[in-house]
Amino acid sequence: MSRVYNFSAGPAALPEEVLKKAAEELPEYRDTGMSVMEMSHRSAEFIEIFNETESLLREIMNIPENYKVLFLQGGASSQFAMVPMNLFNKSKKCDLIHTGNWTKKAISEAKRYGRVNIVASSEDRNFSYIPELDKSKFDSEADYFYICTNNTIYGTRYRELPHTGDVPLVADMSSNILSEPVDLNRFGIIFAGAQKNIGPAGLTIVIIRDDLIGNAMDITPTMFNYKTHADNNSMFNTPPTYCIYIAKLVFEMIKKKGGLAEIEKINSYKAELLYDHLDNSKMFKSTVEKKYRSLMNIPFITGSDELDAKFIKEAAQEGLVTLKGHRSVGGMRASIYNAMPVEGVQKLIEFMKTFEKENS
Amino acid sequence: MSRVYNFSAGPAALPEEVLKKAAEELPEYRDTGMSVMEMSHRSAEFIEIFNETESLLREIMNIPENYKVLFLQGGASSQFAMVPMNLFNKSKKCDLIHTGNWTKKAISEAKRYGRVNIVASSEDRNFSYIPELDKSKFDSEADYFYICTNNTIYGTRYRELPHTGDVPLVADMSSNILSEPVDLNRFGIIFAGAQKNIGPAGLTIVIIRDDLIGNAMDITPTMFNYKTHADNNSMFNTPPTYCIYIAKLVFEMIKKKGGLAEIEKINSYKAELLYDHLDNSKMFKSTVEKKYRSLMNIPFITGSDELDAKFIKEAAQEGLVTLKGHRSVGGMRASIYNAMPVEGVQKLIEFMKTFEKENS
Repeated sequence: MSRVYNFSAGPAALPEEVLKKAAEELPEYRDTGMSVMEMSHRSAEFIEIFNETESLLREIMNIPENYKVLFLQGGASSQFAMVPMNLFNKSKKCDLIHTGNWTKKAISEAKRYGRVNIVASSEDRNFSYIPELDKSKFDSEADYFYICTNNTIYGTRYRELPHTGDVPLVADMSSNILSEPVDLNRFGIIFAGAQKNIGPAGLTIVIIRDDLIGNAMDITPTMFNYKTHADNNSMFNTPPTYCIYIAKLVFEMIKKKGGLAEIEKINSYKAELLYDHLDNSKMFKSTVEKKYRSLMNIPFITGSDELDAKFIKEAAQEGLVTLKGHRSVGGMRASIYNAMPVEGVQKLIEFMKTFEKENS
Repeated sequence: MSRVYNFSAGPAALPEEVLKKAAEELPEYRDTGMSVMEMSHRSAEFIEIFNETESLLREIMNIPENYKVLFLQGGASSQFAMVPMNLFNKSKKCDLIHTGNWTKKAISEAKRYGRVNIVASSEDRNFSYIPELDKSKFDSEADYFYICTNNTIYGTRYRELPHTGDVPLVADMSSNILSEPVDLNRFGIIFAGAQKNIGPAGLTIVIIRDDLIGNAMDITPTMFNYKTHADNNSMFNTPPTYCIYIAKLVFEMIKKKGGLAEIEKINSYKAELLYDHLDNSKMFKSTVEKKYRSLMNIPFITGSDELDAKFIKEAAQEGLVTLKGHRSVGGMRASIYNAMPVEGVQKLIEFMKTFEKENS
């Protein structure tokens, strides 16, 4: 089969040029006589790759000097524990906005180490929107304020960030990091699993403001203490070296394309194409309120399970794959991360038109 | 530069045929139209890879039915906390044999959650041997008994395992897993970071007896609880999918070569070649007592820092790289894991002979 358009929510499509370069360099990296996979993480060759990866990310995201970038393992699921274990050090309370499965997991883990104050929730309408905020519910004594900036499953995203004053804002940005510019100064911590917009599964990036490092709870495992990794430049133990190398190739591509401002334009264009079609279709419709629609994850339904299944099956035959929606929403979901070309979205829309005509 | 012989202690050389196959399949895996890196971990295609990986490992290592195989992240360094957090559930005491840096780290982490009884140590002679055991020092109430079967830095290995009765034996096998057959029934848990004999850094394999799962301490993060991963077949969160795929290619190669019994013969042959040379050389000598010499990591010294440095530099020019020893031992270290061909060891010995002649 020739290359498909892969709408997987994660692990997700990577840029074709990254895969080609990686394949070329896999058996032997430049003139080192070995694969990147085989390099000691303390070798000059790998340290160069590592430093370049961090430096590219700092440049692309415009990361201020007083923030550390950590290259970790364990996914967002590990961050659900690391965040409370490292930040519950004064009131042992946090504020949180509940917008779906991922904040649910963050809540249940944080509750094991302190108190979670849910200041707003969109659970009443199956997480199809981002809730309005009543600032009087914010706790100025909270150790942190937690959000998930883009919900992969429900396809929502924040258009405005909450103003949390001196309380550090912590954001799970797994499914929309690098999709648009962000002002890091608004955050205390952002974290993201790599497997959507960064690289292969197995790498987790944490960007953390200096002053939030070094006051973990006593029970925190050494590997779950941000200080361990900050003090050792992410080399306390062996980092996931090959995933970091692939991330570097992805960051190079983002820079070449003109950075996040340009990436955002393309992402907005792709998303608008698909939302416009959904809003004009008689068969397909979006499940998310207009104001809060994600640029990355676009769930849609026909209203008929049978028709949904037929669509998913026939789309796959056309090379439009992994379109099945998450069971919490049903129907379809098109995840259109940075690596999804405009042509992929156009082909999907064309197929939706054909399918609608044939099945009306 | 053409392919070098890479004596790195880890991340380490991978079999050349594995790298070639991985490079071929990198842009597109079989007829899926996508890279393995791009596959949803819940897709039929990846589940097939995943199941095949586990099934090959079970076959190669002859893993009994009542043991779970977990594909995790975070390296041995995470296991240093996971083991006590999961097993300190009765006396909160463990026995441990101290044989170098890695057991030192295991001790300091375990001490944070319970009591560590060091039943024997080889620290008195810079960890150049495995200590004899005085069984009267064993604590029959210990929740577990901990060893590191092969010390990567000092180049020692156990020839006989301690008999610990009903106390489960836990082994860090990071640097000698898959180098020789082991009787799993002797162990409660074995674990290993992938980056020596399994695959790329970023994957950690834990093999755990069923009855040791499910009694973790209350403070254990969900991701550090073996039960989380055992109950979800290592798919509670996204596993390091590409590392798992490379591990599968490595396991296939081991099976093709005739399994661990054959691998052990080759490893013994390679190690004997090098130890024989060291024992007969006037310039180079082994730092480890004969009885306890590792098949995988072979430190050696000339006794002169200047000569060591010259050797390392000139060896690299001959394509024999990453031979610098760890600072705890000094001199050189040749790590000759499964992927090091016999020819690599022979070329190293030839170069040692030439160097000795030219510098005597």
